[in-house]
Amino acid sequence: MSKETFSPALFIGVEGEDIISFGSGQPDLPPPQEAYSCLPTYRSFKYGLIAGLPKLREALSSENPGFSQEHFVITNGGSEALDLVLRAVTQPGDKIMIHAPYYYSYKPLIEMNHLVPVIVHTTKGKINMDEFKDQIEGCKAVIINSPSNPTGRLQDIADLKVIEKTTEDLGIVLISDEVYKDLIYERENYDLSGPQVVTVNSFSKTFAMCGFRVGYLFSTDLSIIERIVVLKTHSSMNTNILGQEMAYHATQAPKSYISEQTAIWKERRDLIYSSMQDMGLEVWKPQGAFYIFPKITDSLSFSEELFKKHKVITYPGDWFGQPGHVRFSYALDVSKITEGLKRVTDFLDSR
Amino acid sequence: MSKETFSPALFIGVEGEDIISFGSGQPDLPPPQEAYSCLPTYRSFKYGLIAGLPKLREALSSENPGFSQEHFVITNGGSEALDLVLRAVTQPGDKIMIHAPYYYSYKPLIEMNHLVPVIVHTTKGKINMDEFKDQIEGCKAVIINSPSNPTGRLQDIADLKVIEKTTEDLGIVLISDEVYKDLIYERENYDLSGPQVVTVNSFSKTFAMCGFRVGYLFSTDLSIIERIVVLKTHSSMNTNILGQEMAYHATQAPKSYISEQTAIWKERRDLIYSSMQDMGLEVWKPQGAFYIFPKITDSLSFSEELFKKHKVITYPGDWFGQPGHVRFSYALDVSKITEGLKRVTDFLDSR
Repeated sequence: MSKETFSPALFIGVEGEDIISFGSGQPDLPPPQEAYSCLPTYRSFKYGLIAGLPKLREALSSENPGFSQEHFVITNGGSEALDLVLRAVTQPGDKIMIHAPYYYSYKPLIEMNHLVPVIVHTTKGKINMDEFKDQIEGCKAVIINSPSNPTGRLQDIADLKVIEKTTEDLGIVLISDEVYKDLIYERENYDLSGPQVVTVNSFSKTFAMCGFRVGYLFSTDLSIIERIVVLKTHSSMNTNILGQEMAYHATQAPKSYISEQTAIWKERRDLIYSSMQDMGLEVWKPQGAFYIFPKITDSLSFSEELFKKHKVITYPGDWFGQPGHVRFSYALDVSKITEGLKRVTDFLDSR
Repeated sequence: MSKETFSPALFIGVEGEDIISFGSGQPDLPPPQEAYSCLPTYRSFKYGLIAGLPKLREALSSENPGFSQEHFVITNGGSEALDLVLRAVTQPGDKIMIHAPYYYSYKPLIEMNHLVPVIVHTTKGKINMDEFKDQIEGCKAVIINSPSNPTGRLQDIADLKVIEKTTEDLGIVLISDEVYKDLIYERENYDLSGPQVVTVNSFSKTFAMCGFRVGYLFSTDLSIIERIVVLKTHSSMNTNILGQEMAYHATQAPKSYISEQTAIWKERRDLIYSSMQDMGLEVWKPQGAFYIFPKITDSLSFSEELFKKHKVITYPGDWFGQPGHVRFSYALDVSKITEGLKRVTDFLDSR
């Protein structure tokens, strides 16, 4: 396997007997049954509104005080939401700030839109605020991802307030990628807000609907929303109408669905965190999402060899802008976590 | 209604009592029942392969001799396919040739990718080959759309062969938008082919699945396919898994589904073409798709006023790069076509 072909695209959607995947960031437990309730009688087939199904936008706005359905656009997952925001607010050459380690799509999305990444570092997953302040001027937008993929760490609320104020004062678009906001074990999410904020979210993680690709973005800046709707009219049109119908029904599931999921993630988090400590790995405690990011030197060859020799999928920190660490998703059941970590231990012992 | 807000986005997904829409280009008759057969028992939810469901790509490749499933990528409609090809093969400033009148998304897609449109003209919908030859050198890609949206006209096979040879000789990417290839009344489609060709197609028109947004592209150039898969990994990931499953089942419908649809379109084509001739409109006979593009001077105000005064939606040629004509979609039943044309006659008489 060459460095060239060893990439996330290699593993997405890949399953196989005896493979244990700490790779793809997707829930293993199914969506709420309500999501499927509309299927047997569904017969629509025509184009929908580009901005999205009104009743879905209405349901989302009712969960986000201060917003109404006109502030929302339903997208092909959080991925398209991020791409559309970047396309709507930038021109080639503009600078976009991200914090490393970052979700592996950020840098490619920035580069495929002919933009320039400005990367600030983190300590144990927390943004270095001195670097933020030194480098924020001249950026067109900044992407904040708390809880973070790949670290599972939260940014401190005091820092988030500084980021809010600074971007508002400087007129910089603040893109808040909150796709893990419902999966936090320590406190409530701090929703970034302000006239400069565009929030990105998704049904993929909260409702385990990864394959259906239903995400959304919202902002009180209607000029951005209008530009995004025009762009989407040409680049993909409406998001799959049936996916949106399923997402609407998911919002009607009892709130216990989410709290039960979070309890399961927390149990797995506790297991993998304590196991990795027992294995002697240097690791930060995940506070949200379902990722853990231990320090493992030579991360690229670790992930490649672990897959080839032990059929265990992990993602090297190199893909997230931080070599020397490896991302483990713990969105798999405890027996697989245990078996997978056993193979990792064997592999580490054999090196 | 200002010129600013009078745009296609205004009408997509809009329905209302007493509105007659010759606007949106979508079939009014439903998809084959096979498309819905998988719904009652569907329970998958995980990410799919970025390139698309293997059995769907297999089914498509079996219909396209010389291709195998690795040559295909399933996309969020033909729109995303076009956007991805442009993103994969260009750099900002590159020139892209299109023929006017053109599908209204071509120019915005070119411009949102920071590219420069090179527009060749047509006579009664047929490309002016002298202009093509004069302007093709230095273009990075050319988009051919036969049958054409908005004219319903076919390019002559002799001209298509010249376009094939010229682009191959010059190493120019030939993007063939064949979303209406199954809706031709006069002859079989001429499938553009060659190592420089990327073909775009969709389930929206042939199988009336517009709202589900399942399109695809294919090419024997695996380097382009690979670049597109990487781009899509970051910009939207897999196309909705259930939409793909439905599309697969649509491919299993009896072939009579398509021939029955085409017979209905042809009946409507004959009705609207002869009616418009009777109304004294100057009009070219549509040979495919479900559009007719009569000459109507002052097209923008015609479409605006016709909608405001008579609740009839039409799309002015201005949106397609050819003012002085108006696009009528005849994807609606004959009683509505008749009533709509009656209102148009009244409106024309009152001006």
